[in-house]
Amino acid sequence: MFSPLIEDLIRALRCLPGVGPKSAQRMAMYLLEKDRDAAGLLAHSLQQAVEKVGRCGRCRTLTEQVVCALCNNTRRDHSLLCVVETPADVLAIEQAGNYHGLYFVLHGHLSPIDGVGPADLGLDLLGERLGERENGGIVELIIATNPTVEGEATAQFIAERARTKGVAVSRIAHGVPIGGELEYIDGGTLAHAFNSRTVL
Amino acid sequence: MFSPLIEDLIRALRCLPGVGPKSAQRMAMYLLEKDRDAAGLLAHSLQQAVEKVGRCGRCRTLTEQVVCALCNNTRRDHSLLCVVETPADVLAIEQAGNYHGLYFVLHGHLSPIDGVGPADLGLDLLGERLGERENGGIVELIIATNPTVEGEATAQFIAERARTKGVAVSRIAHGVPIGGELEYIDGGTLAHAFNSRTVL
Ligand SMILES: [Zn+2]
Ligand SMILES: [Zn+2]
Repeated sequence: MFSPLIEDLIRALRCLPGVGPKSAQRMAMYLLEKDRDAAGLLAHSLQQAVEKVGRCGRCRTLTEQVVCALCNNTRRDHSLLCVVETPADVLAIEQAGNYHGLYFVLHGHLSPIDGVGPADLGLDLLGERLGERENGGIVELIIATNPTVEGEATAQFIAERARTKGVAVSRIAHGVPIGGELEYIDGGTLAHAFNSRTVL
Repeated sequence: MFSPLIEDLIRALRCLPGVGPKSAQRMAMYLLEKDRDAAGLLAHSLQQAVEKVGRCGRCRTLTEQVVCALCNNTRRDHSLLCVVETPADVLAIEQAGNYHGLYFVLHGHLSPIDGVGPADLGLDLLGERLGERENGGIVELIIATNPTVEGEATAQFIAERARTKGVAVSRIAHGVPIGGELEYIDGGTLAHAFNSRTVL
């Protein structure tokens, strides 16, 4: 090729999820031909984020602060704690916009085969949170791990621990998505929707 | 949101072509949760490319070298010169793999409305190239500007100038769909277009 540095850039862009060789090439050419300011800004943002973003000391979500803005927000309901697998789940729930409690991020799920145990998911820290009694402490733990085998096992494990702390535990509902059409829903989801039916 | 630096990163990623808000969010989360090495490498590659990549002194393609590897490659046919609009077009033609001459990159096309004239496209430099007589000089100029109104006008303009220098001029064949852009065409079509070029 005509430039080793451009080859390096294309290779580096391919590490982004959903970016194949053609997209990476188009991105590199666009940045170098049309918008070098954007390229410089992206380099700076990446470097800053990699260097400074760690985990919130209370909820373990990604943040550059010691305690994140969600945990520090006094207008949120500090009696509700929602357990999710990833920071991306926090973003998705925040964008839905109807939950106003706090979060706890596991960064994964229990997976004995991969050597992922309770300590890796921060369950000691979660236990401490559930034991706190200032301002009434946490009244309800809402478990929003993914509806996979591992996510369900993790939910059960956490639920048992939370019950011993005297905290109410719930699981978000799984079933046919609102606006979804029955004929396009996978069999597993449909089976679950039937088994979890509620009385009208 | 829970981290201003992550917000900055998502905003910066949205400047990439084809990346919407959801993809940018997914990319940021992936890089920070799963592959910080890739993020650091991408930051470095971007910064290096922005800082060091300029234009080849002979063909004007993007390169960090004074004269690019294509122009310096003695195994290529230095009697053939292919004129393209963008460095992305060079990449596309190289990937098609059946052209072995040299290139000249315009970085655009004639566009009086936008104030883009011959000087902006490096046509003085192109004129010099066509006037060189070492090792037989350039025998054929292959014009591969896009088959758009502006690309055709640019092709005609360059063809007239080249003829005054006594250089044979050809245009790649219209296997390339009218209104399409070179960098998105598959290699087979491009190869056909080169093989079917007609004398202007
Ligand atoms: Zn937090
Ligand atoms: Zn060159």
